[in-house]
Amino acid sequence: MKNIKLTIQYDGSRYHGWQNQKNVANTLQSKFEAVLSRMTNETIEIAASGRTDGGVHAMAQVANFKSNTTLTCPEILAYLNAYLPMDIAVLQVEEVPERFHSRLNATGKTYRYRIWNSPVPNVFERHYLYSLAEPLDLARMREAAALLCGTHDFQSFCRTKPGKKSTVRTISNIEIVAEGSEISLHFTGNGFLHQMVRILTGTLLEVGLGKKEPSDMLTILAAKDRSKAGFLAPSQGLYLQEVFYHNSALS
Amino acid sequence: MKNIKLTIQYDGSRYHGWQNQKNVANTLQSKFEAVLSRMTNETIEIAASGRTDGGVHAMAQVANFKSNTTLTCPEILAYLNAYLPMDIAVLQVEEVPERFHSRLNATGKTYRYRIWNSPVPNVFERHYLYSLAEPLDLARMREAAALLCGTHDFQSFCRTKPGKKSTVRTISNIEIVAEGSEISLHFTGNGFLHQMVRILTGTLLEVGLGKKEPSDMLTILAAKDRSKAGFLAPSQGLYLQEVFYHNSALS
Repeated sequence: MKNIKLTIQYDGSRYHGWQNQKNVANTLQSKFEAVLSRMTNETIEIAASGRTDGGVHAMAQVANFKSNTTLTCPEILAYLNAYLPMDIAVLQVEEVPERFHSRLNATGKTYRYRIWNSPVPNVFERHYLYSLAEPLDLARMREAAALLCGTHDFQSFCRTKPGKKSTVRTISNIEIVAEGSEISLHFTGNGFLHQMVRILTGTLLEVGLGKKEPSDMLTILAAKDRSKAGFLAPSQGLYLQEVFYHNSALS
Repeated sequence: MKNIKLTIQYDGSRYHGWQNQKNVANTLQSKFEAVLSRMTNETIEIAASGRTDGGVHAMAQVANFKSNTTLTCPEILAYLNAYLPMDIAVLQVEEVPERFHSRLNATGKTYRYRIWNSPVPNVFERHYLYSLAEPLDLARMREAAALLCGTHDFQSFCRTKPGKKSTVRTISNIEIVAEGSEISLHFTGNGFLHQMVRILTGTLLEVGLGKKEPSDMLTILAAKDRSKAGFLAPSQGLYLQEVFYHNSALS
């Protein structure tokens, strides 16, 4: 049986996230499973590196599925791009060792949050950015971001209520890049909790607008209370940018 | 009375073109006239460098209007960007000599036509490009483009039926640029007839796909018959990129 790894780009705007859920139509997973099952005449289940929420985009989501198909990787690529909707693209198809699992073997991820920081609208990308007219103080945001890096309990930056599962994660880097009026926040870490990147972004934006102090990050982390953190930045600005694997998982 | 020049960007997708027409709602001109009239408490008429058709975009359309407003240029810029819809942006507001007219003084224009030439869809810009999976032969297209440059009767490349008005225009340059999977055609000339850039693009695409020969351009020009030229490329890939004026018109 072949194990096929896909690298996938999608505009998440009209999807209810990656993952199949009860009584929810139009997930990305269901789109892939329908087209792959038709392609192979098998019942295909696909696993992704992680769920993305409704409205969240991906530049390079990674997923894998197992199949007895005799199709080659270029044939699978062509089939998927021909039959999937135009808001989904398959960038790469590779055969990988049978033990490879896109979620279990992922060692880290980078998410990018895109902000258009200008009173002049971004006409062509307005659905793919969060637009904010008031100027952001990036120095303050970088100071706050540095305090969020490292291994912490991110309970305050997560939607899920406290439970048995650990909310400790490691953020290795938060990079804040300005290119003209566009500001991108790049979050790299070993894993992210539900809505964590969007809550981190909302909190950093409040620092950039002067509504919170950089040093508040320490008290917010310590509080382990979602209500202490900032607002939930809208999904339309968020991109799953890259998923990392050890080479050993892939060869 | 002040004469105010605007440099405007718009996503033309949901508009019936720039120009007001009888029984047609939702033109760009009508949006501007409504907001400007409200801003000034006057009845404002706005003139643009030229009409753009329904669905055509602008990176830098130029328009002007006359008003007794006491608002400064930065105040007008802020007002327009606050009250116009999010698919319109005003990039620049300048006071110009009273004799300046955005259409009558325009000495030339550049239009850009954007093509995504790959079997892998462009997920995020799919509404702003024309997508074509079959590979284009750019050398053939450049050869054909060279034959279209110069002063010609472009009747074959124009929607309007032969009439009293001249269909002679001068194209000073057609540049074909590839960046990854994106191919842009940049047309610069002293003026363009109705649908001319889209028909030129459709014809050049047919050359690039091997359906027409570069040398066919000469017979198409000579025929003065729209049916000899290529298909009408969709409006969603077309951008009014730049409008040119003599400095003398502006100072």
